[in-house]
Amino acid sequence: MLNVITLLEAIGIAEHNVNVAPPQTERLPLCAACGRVLAEDIVSAENVPAFDRSTMDGFAVSARDTFGASGTLPAMLDITGEVGMGEKTDISLSSGECVKIPTGGMLPVGADAVVPVEHTDTENGVCLVYTSVSPLQNVTRAGDDVALGQTVLKKGALFTPAAVGVLASMGREEVTVYKKLRVGILSTGDELVNIGETPEIGQVRDVNSHLLASLVSSFGCEPVNYGIIKDDEASLSDAITRTAAASDILLLSGGSSAGDADRTAALVQKHGTLFCHGIAVKPGKPTVLGQIGSTPVFGLPGHPAACFFMAQILVKRHVFVRTGRADAALPLTLPLSEHVSSNHGREELLCVRIENGSAVPVYAKSGVISLLAAAHGYTVIPRESEGLEKGSAVSVYPFA
Amino acid sequence: MLNVITLLEAIGIAEHNVNVAPPQTERLPLCAACGRVLAEDIVSAENVPAFDRSTMDGFAVSARDTFGASGTLPAMLDITGEVGMGEKTDISLSSGECVKIPTGGMLPVGADAVVPVEHTDTENGVCLVYTSVSPLQNVTRAGDDVALGQTVLKKGALFTPAAVGVLASMGREEVTVYKKLRVGILSTGDELVNIGETPEIGQVRDVNSHLLASLVSSFGCEPVNYGIIKDDEASLSDAITRTAAASDILLLSGGSSAGDADRTAALVQKHGTLFCHGIAVKPGKPTVLGQIGSTPVFGLPGHPAACFFMAQILVKRHVFVRTGRADAALPLTLPLSEHVSSNHGREELLCVRIENGSAVPVYAKSGVISLLAAAHGYTVIPRESEGLEKGSAVSVYPFA
Repeated sequence: MLNVITLLEAIGIAEHNVNVAPPQTERLPLCAACGRVLAEDIVSAENVPAFDRSTMDGFAVSARDTFGASGTLPAMLDITGEVGMGEKTDISLSSGECVKIPTGGMLPVGADAVVPVEHTDTENGVCLVYTSVSPLQNVTRAGDDVALGQTVLKKGALFTPAAVGVLASMGREEVTVYKKLRVGILSTGDELVNIGETPEIGQVRDVNSHLLASLVSSFGCEPVNYGIIKDDEASLSDAITRTAAASDILLLSGGSSAGDADRTAALVQKHGTLFCHGIAVKPGKPTVLGQIGSTPVFGLPGHPAACFFMAQILVKRHVFVRTGRADAALPLTLPLSEHVSSNHGREELLCVRIENGSAVPVYAKSGVISLLAAAHGYTVIPRESEGLEKGSAVSVYPFA
Repeated sequence: MLNVITLLEAIGIAEHNVNVAPPQTERLPLCAACGRVLAEDIVSAENVPAFDRSTMDGFAVSARDTFGASGTLPAMLDITGEVGMGEKTDISLSSGECVKIPTGGMLPVGADAVVPVEHTDTENGVCLVYTSVSPLQNVTRAGDDVALGQTVLKKGALFTPAAVGVLASMGREEVTVYKKLRVGILSTGDELVNIGETPEIGQVRDVNSHLLASLVSSFGCEPVNYGIIKDDEASLSDAITRTAAASDILLLSGGSSAGDADRTAALVQKHGTLFCHGIAVKPGKPTVLGQIGSTPVFGLPGHPAACFFMAQILVKRHVFVRTGRADAALPLTLPLSEHVSSNHGREELLCVRIENGSAVPVYAKSGVISLLAAAHGYTVIPRESEGLEKGSAVSVYPFA
């Protein structure tokens, strides 16, 4: 039997101590890929914009023709033409000349700045310029947004709506992202009944498979809920090996008996490799980490709150590292609204609400899931802490 | 022509000044409803748990039988039976008796506490209890988690994985949520070409329709991308009235010319009601708010960065208020990494990266979309600000 390990050690196992195949990739249209993780570096094949453009409605000029111009002493430039919106222009500007140009219009050869229309007057084909502009003023240069050959987004980045905009501006219609990891979910425990059934006395509904399915969906995975497996050695062995082979990740969730973690550990040991049997954290102690074939296996506590915490921390971390995902939820640093008493020799996960900029502890017994509906996130009380003072700054990890 | 309004006034219009039908609802299985907004209060029809349960493996006792027990002076209780996991028990406990019970097991009548197995020894049918327990210690009472008649979740709450767990524990298989709002997206401007095409000089790709489609998906809406509409009065009038009738929200995104907002405003005026024509914010000035029939219309700037900002702020706010959604992204309070110079008489939206716990400004010209890929969120520089000092605390609104 392995020793109980710390939460930090368990996170280390979830991150690295699993020998898994690299995730598969697929090409998707931009909008369909949103929320996925990039599996390619995005390198620009062109300059964006492709030409120098005006950022104002006004007159394209050679900036030096406006030097010294003012409200009382305007520069006077001949209007030699007009650039239409969305039109290529062949106009070439000489000194003393200007060209009417709309916002987004292509800058003619010889022009290097734009005077906004509100600083001009026109009279008989002559433009009176009441302000000086410097070179490149009111102009976006070719490649200013994205330059040819530039790496714009890196593999491992979350593909966000803003990233959709970046690829669209580069003329990309599709992108290579990681396939969703397929997460098998098995519930074990003869006391479990399906949620649609009315439990007899002594039975409990199978909350965890639904909790885990929606949770791993929120991590960007594809859940496969195998439901409740009969609690005997043969059925369990068969179900675990079969579903492990069909999954990228296998989640087992026990009943609420203390023996469940032992049974899960023995099964993982028998059919694969056991990495950890018990974590010194409250709630979450009866957690098992292992691997069957090339599939990481997480044996999660039966208590829904403990199950939720361990999935939030360990399974999520595994999923993120496995797809090389660079982003992570940033903890908020908030003052604690009240004193929190010391814990009992192991790290403690404390649910909090965020109210008026403070972290307000939410207390409930282990297994009390309504607590999760009330909480916005959690903070960690360190192992050797003698309690946390009211007003002390804590790191809050939002659930969302 | 209406005056330019402030961003705060525009948010007020997005929130309230639209006379719209209440959103429709639908019933969905729990996991499918995750990420939606609750359209019903969730009231418990039962106690969860349904019976008093043990939270430990041990012995169910009457607490008063253990008072005064210690390591040197154990209480001695007759073991009169055993409660099986997932079994109803008819055992009734008398004084001086105890019953073996697993974690999650049903507490027998007469028992009001559980002594953990590690504080006991058994000898010839007698349990030696080495510690005293108080009434209700190591016990979850019926209804402790959710009491009969209790409102557990309120209409307007985001339906999260934790909420899935709550409903599952109550035996609910389905939930009533708001239907996704249908958001019509129209691009206007003769300089626009589809993103798969290579723009001629003077043309630009239609970035905004893809940006907006993925953005409103992230707000929980269903985008309908109508693509690029030919830039003449008849085509535009026809497209706007037709798509407004088919949409819960209509987004128009102009080209990059300053005249686009005027044209959009005139069209909205003609076919419906115009609320605002221009917002004193940078970027985002050429924004139009109005309504056609019962459909709110947002005329968004052509510059992708400005379009992104206005959709992030105004469209998102509208969607949230319309579904009564109670949650909102909390701003992070972070120190500014460097001095930011004063702005120009209107509010300014400043993109920031979050690095080492600081907000680091990201600068780029308007319309420069690669800036969005680099930024994590934004902060607002107030209208009358003379600049923000390095180290001053700013509110950062994450994009995600």
